[in-house]
Amino acid sequence: MSHIFHLDGCSILLGDLKAHFPAWLRERGYSRLFLVADTNTQELCLPCFLEKTSLQEGFSIEVMPAGERFKNLDSCQHIWLSMLDARLDRRALVVNLGGGVVGDLGGFCAATWKRGVDFVQVPTTLLAMTDAAIGGKLGIDFQGVKNTLGVFQNPAAVFVDPSFLKTLPERELRSGLAEIIKHALIGAPSLLEKIMAECVGVPIGDALSDDGWAGVLHASIAVKVRIVQDDPMEKGVRALLNFGHTIGHALESYFLDTAEPLTHGEAIAIGMICESRMGGAVNLEDIIAVNKCFFTHRHIPASAFSALWDLMRQDKKNAAGAVRMTLPGDEPFSMRMVEVKREMMEEGLAFYNSI
Amino acid sequence: MSHIFHLDGCSILLGDLKAHFPAWLRERGYSRLFLVADTNTQELCLPCFLEKTSLQEGFSIEVMPAGERFKNLDSCQHIWLSMLDARLDRRALVVNLGGGVVGDLGGFCAATWKRGVDFVQVPTTLLAMTDAAIGGKLGIDFQGVKNTLGVFQNPAAVFVDPSFLKTLPERELRSGLAEIIKHALIGAPSLLEKIMAECVGVPIGDALSDDGWAGVLHASIAVKVRIVQDDPMEKGVRALLNFGHTIGHALESYFLDTAEPLTHGEAIAIGMICESRMGGAVNLEDIIAVNKCFFTHRHIPASAFSALWDLMRQDKKNAAGAVRMTLPGDEPFSMRMVEVKREMMEEGLAFYNSI
Repeated sequence: MSHIFHLDGCSILLGDLKAHFPAWLRERGYSRLFLVADTNTQELCLPCFLEKTSLQEGFSIEVMPAGERFKNLDSCQHIWLSMLDARLDRRALVVNLGGGVVGDLGGFCAATWKRGVDFVQVPTTLLAMTDAAIGGKLGIDFQGVKNTLGVFQNPAAVFVDPSFLKTLPERELRSGLAEIIKHALIGAPSLLEKIMAECVGVPIGDALSDDGWAGVLHASIAVKVRIVQDDPMEKGVRALLNFGHTIGHALESYFLDTAEPLTHGEAIAIGMICESRMGGAVNLEDIIAVNKCFFTHRHIPASAFSALWDLMRQDKKNAAGAVRMTLPGDEPFSMRMVEVKREMMEEGLAFYNSI
Repeated sequence: MSHIFHLDGCSILLGDLKAHFPAWLRERGYSRLFLVADTNTQELCLPCFLEKTSLQEGFSIEVMPAGERFKNLDSCQHIWLSMLDARLDRRALVVNLGGGVVGDLGGFCAATWKRGVDFVQVPTTLLAMTDAAIGGKLGIDFQGVKNTLGVFQNPAAVFVDPSFLKTLPERELRSGLAEIIKHALIGAPSLLEKIMAECVGVPIGDALSDDGWAGVLHASIAVKVRIVQDDPMEKGVRALLNFGHTIGHALESYFLDTAEPLTHGEAIAIGMICESRMGGAVNLEDIIAVNKCFFTHRHIPASAFSALWDLMRQDKKNAAGAVRMTLPGDEPFSMRMVEVKREMMEEGLAFYNSI
């Protein structure tokens, strides 16, 4: 199964890497390849990547430590130093093999290297395949605040190969499912039915074949592509993709330094429930139901509310001090913007704690 | 005297700041202004800027140490921290008040803050007015290598007010003249005559009135605007603007950490002579003559040649290991690309030493 989306100058190639990557690369005259991986993907994905792409020479590899807490300027500096050592010129290609962190950070390093070299995303997590790798948002955290530094820059291509999903632990797969659920709630009701029919009550990794995943990813990516095409710079409808993220990002940041961090998807799942409650969404019960199928409950202590509010006020989507969140409207692809007050946030979190 | 150029979405407003800035700002709904200055412009230009723009509130000011050696990631981190403290949102405007370093670095910080906020350049040096502030090249040095990190991003506007030239020492004015000479050699022969007629043998600051400078700047900026318009991403003709810079950048970097650094313009003036010799330019004698009028000779020790070659090989313009330089061709706006070998470079530098 093989699909191609086009998003501005970027091709999103869905299917076996072997069928897409070597041909794509041959058509271009890159001087050299510079691979970015993390310690996980180096072990679990790189051998497969090199085998499928038949790459044997003309590349160097930079490996960063795995995890969101390394998505910072220090890691960028390591990569930029390696680029300097490799004398990477402007006609080089950076290949980011990994999840959202590798893609966001490796992409940012590429987009700022000598004022920008081409890069491709090879997402290896469900989350990155359906969301992070698509749409040109690049960036890093700064002083613990998520995605504070970054640019918009589309990759030259995104290669989405579902076979990498086999390398993922169950919890990571569920994390990715949260963004797929979000896309389904925004604009693909039949995708929601498919997930509920096929993924509930089984290990996610076993729920679908590679082709089955390609089908799910196709429907989910189609929602994201449509929105990003309409609003590449997040001036309007793209804010819809932030559903669940106003609360979710704050939760993710807050728990990052605790003994039990939340995955991105777990945080977004809680965020979708809280924000739907705060915004008075009519389908609140459905949203609770689907998220309960895949995510265990996590109590949010009242002692965290103040810090969460501070984190929310740092959110990029805010203008002139107001905290805003965006919810799906009644029609597919319609949206509602709601201003958030601290009391609303506290009520939303307390509601989540009570379900 | 007042001129406006348009370069993609960017307006270049030439003339008294008072006539342009307040009206421009009123038309836009920025949430807040964030000014970047350096220790020089804070003292010499900020009072005049605030008076001319009638700004009294709704802004904060970040002052960085003056000088090319502070055009690095450390200075960026200070600015990003201040932006975080100021809770700068995406609808803010960053105003860079200074020379090329402030514009390149403040612009880079703005372009990467929350994936990009608007910024304007208010160049205060002749060099920045005619060159650095125009064309969307932003960036910082990394590990001592010039402009290694950066992006292309046009400012929302550039305000070129020649009255700031009065704040500049003679040496700094001459530095700016080198880029004006370069623009004249590329595509404005009458500008070269004007400079030779009016600026030779007098202190540059006294040579022309504000309106006289506006005329010179208009002719010089017109050359740059035409080239950038044709080739915003430096895939072709924009390389012409690098005339003198393959050698010049290396010289500038090399002398940066010595007791007697070269100004950018001094380095480019030497670069133009060396490159014209190396490329066999027919107007070599004219190029030597005009540069001799404004720049004192600086001996380049043979012991520096090896380090200079290494610096040149790091140049962004290079592809696949080859070192390239670009020279004006016989017709205005035509160009020649020449591959540089180490022996050629050494001969060019030795020739410069001998004149």
